[in-house]
Amino acid sequence: MTDTLTSRLKGITANIKPLNAEAQAETAAYLDSLTKPPGSLGKLESLAIQLAGITGEMKPSFTKTSVVVMAGDHGVCDEGISAFPAEVTPQMVMNFLNGGAAVNVLARQAGADVHCVDIGVASEVTHERLLSRNIGRGTANMAKGPAMTKEAALESIVAGAEVAAELVSRGTQMFVTGEMGIGNTTPSAAIFSVLSGYQPSDVVGRGTGVTDERLLHKIRVVEQAIQVNRPHADDPLDVLAKVGGYEIGGLAGLILGAASHGCPVIIDGFISSAAALVAKSICPDALPYMIASHVSHEQAHVLLLKELGLQPMLQMDMRLGEGTGGVLCLHLVEAACRIVNEMATFESAGISGGAV
Amino acid sequence: MTDTLTSRLKGITANIKPLNAEAQAETAAYLDSLTKPPGSLGKLESLAIQLAGITGEMKPSFTKTSVVVMAGDHGVCDEGISAFPAEVTPQMVMNFLNGGAAVNVLARQAGADVHCVDIGVASEVTHERLLSRNIGRGTANMAKGPAMTKEAALESIVAGAEVAAELVSRGTQMFVTGEMGIGNTTPSAAIFSVLSGYQPSDVVGRGTGVTDERLLHKIRVVEQAIQVNRPHADDPLDVLAKVGGYEIGGLAGLILGAASHGCPVIIDGFISSAAALVAKSICPDALPYMIASHVSHEQAHVLLLKELGLQPMLQMDMRLGEGTGGVLCLHLVEAACRIVNEMATFESAGISGGAV
Repeated sequence: MTDTLTSRLKGITANIKPLNAEAQAETAAYLDSLTKPPGSLGKLESLAIQLAGITGEMKPSFTKTSVVVMAGDHGVCDEGISAFPAEVTPQMVMNFLNGGAAVNVLARQAGADVHCVDIGVASEVTHERLLSRNIGRGTANMAKGPAMTKEAALESIVAGAEVAAELVSRGTQMFVTGEMGIGNTTPSAAIFSVLSGYQPSDVVGRGTGVTDERLLHKIRVVEQAIQVNRPHADDPLDVLAKVGGYEIGGLAGLILGAASHGCPVIIDGFISSAAALVAKSICPDALPYMIASHVSHEQAHVLLLKELGLQPMLQMDMRLGEGTGGVLCLHLVEAACRIVNEMATFESAGISGGAV
Repeated sequence: MTDTLTSRLKGITANIKPLNAEAQAETAAYLDSLTKPPGSLGKLESLAIQLAGITGEMKPSFTKTSVVVMAGDHGVCDEGISAFPAEVTPQMVMNFLNGGAAVNVLARQAGADVHCVDIGVASEVTHERLLSRNIGRGTANMAKGPAMTKEAALESIVAGAEVAAELVSRGTQMFVTGEMGIGNTTPSAAIFSVLSGYQPSDVVGRGTGVTDERLLHKIRVVEQAIQVNRPHADDPLDVLAKVGGYEIGGLAGLILGAASHGCPVIIDGFISSAAALVAKSICPDALPYMIASHVSHEQAHVLLLKELGLQPMLQMDMRLGEGTGGVLCLHLVEAACRIVNEMATFESAGISGGAV
């Protein structure tokens, strides 16, 4: 079983190609012919070049985007590390499916679809629009032992990649990562700490809003989880299994799956970025397919984006997750595409180009 | 003449009301009933509260937005402070009118109208869609003497406010500031330096892209303009007249006019922010009507936004002006409105609310 999963993951990562350098160079040159000083549209220009490299088109455009919200529960909630009770996870899943959550509102504005995946919710949730890929009914408490088996970690990644493949087959051209899981900033911080070498005290934040006292406790829980499990920093699967979560594995898989199908994937906040770090650790070639959206209010998100080498575009002080920051960024992706597709050139507008 | 203009400006600023505190409190309370941890949507929430205060509606929404691009030329270009020749100003005005500039592309995406105003272009420009409000054919060289008379400065502000009034009468509910004027980061830096007390070397940046050598020269030109003219820091009209520009005055007036009609006004980049500082110095009550959009690549924009007390939402490394950063921000304004109008409440979604 593990062997089959390993070979499926290998098949996915083997399919991730370097970006098309020719298309990137063409778009870069074309951007300099448009009626603006070279480079003056900043990240809109670098984004246009990246999207050209991903799609192979000098003038990229996207018609169908899927926001994938992976939901899972966390045994470590037993340690009292969250401001909300774990029962909120399935309640919010129903909210996503009924269209009432923040991510639904922002996705409607952006014209994107929201797909909710039960990859590790503790209680049974049924709904005709729910993608049921449950691998375990919540992780075990990582402060006491491994969150899940290595096989389950591998399974979560492959499941995430298969969700990407399925949505691509139904027309999706771009992805946004989203998640729901009460307590999931705790495993995200643990993963980040192990994979980067930062101390838990540097990477643990307040999540959806814990007090000073509980923040110190949360740091100690992450320290304990790392001490008890001794995850191997050079083995991302081991790290994910010991101190991770199902939805984090699922998102890492979604990112790898998106990259293997040549689709850009917009990374939301802290938890999504921890998943991106797992994906990058498994396959560094996936990194050029990732687009950072916002820097969240979660203290260590800046550090985590730096570790990934990604530049966020929005600074909204958001700390909700769900994919909300990622979805807001779709507008900027569209703007980058429209700049290339619609702006006048110096020549067509008859404007004096060069520097004096 | 000056007396008439002074009394017209007084009439405009007298009309600027404090925000509706009741509507703000209602929206703040309502936001806390929505299915998310309190405050977790960060600046989207503070924006929703601000917009409620401006409109007096608990659930604000906007249907018609105007981007106003004020164009003017600068005598100080004689000192060689820009990377582009001054002839580009009227050429770009034609580009705005023909819909080919970056701001046109981004405004189409946002569903906003672009209005281009000739408030101080050096050469004659005619076009049926151009708003001709020319006060002078380019400013004088501020390195040698005042950029304009105090009467012309006053006239530019009143003209800007009247453009706002005219567009409001045609249905505009929200404004974005935009500008075009080769060389206009130089007077903007001079205004900022005088009104804030920062040294020219702290506030002069590279504009659309000057070299290291020319940057030092640009700093010296601003120093010289301040030495020659000795503008009075406590008299914003004197500052605008001596080291300002027509389009900067026009934008200050547009901001005051928007506020006097109860409309939010989105502030674009460095030049627009210098105009906002003039507007705030004339009438501090206008500040709550302003929304900062992006922090630009121009070195001192961060400082200038701090001086204004405004928090930008986008960090795109843009340095184009035209209103491009402001227009990108319209999406976030709409998102803030949709959150209040469309999200489910804890009660309606049956979700466990409080902290544990």
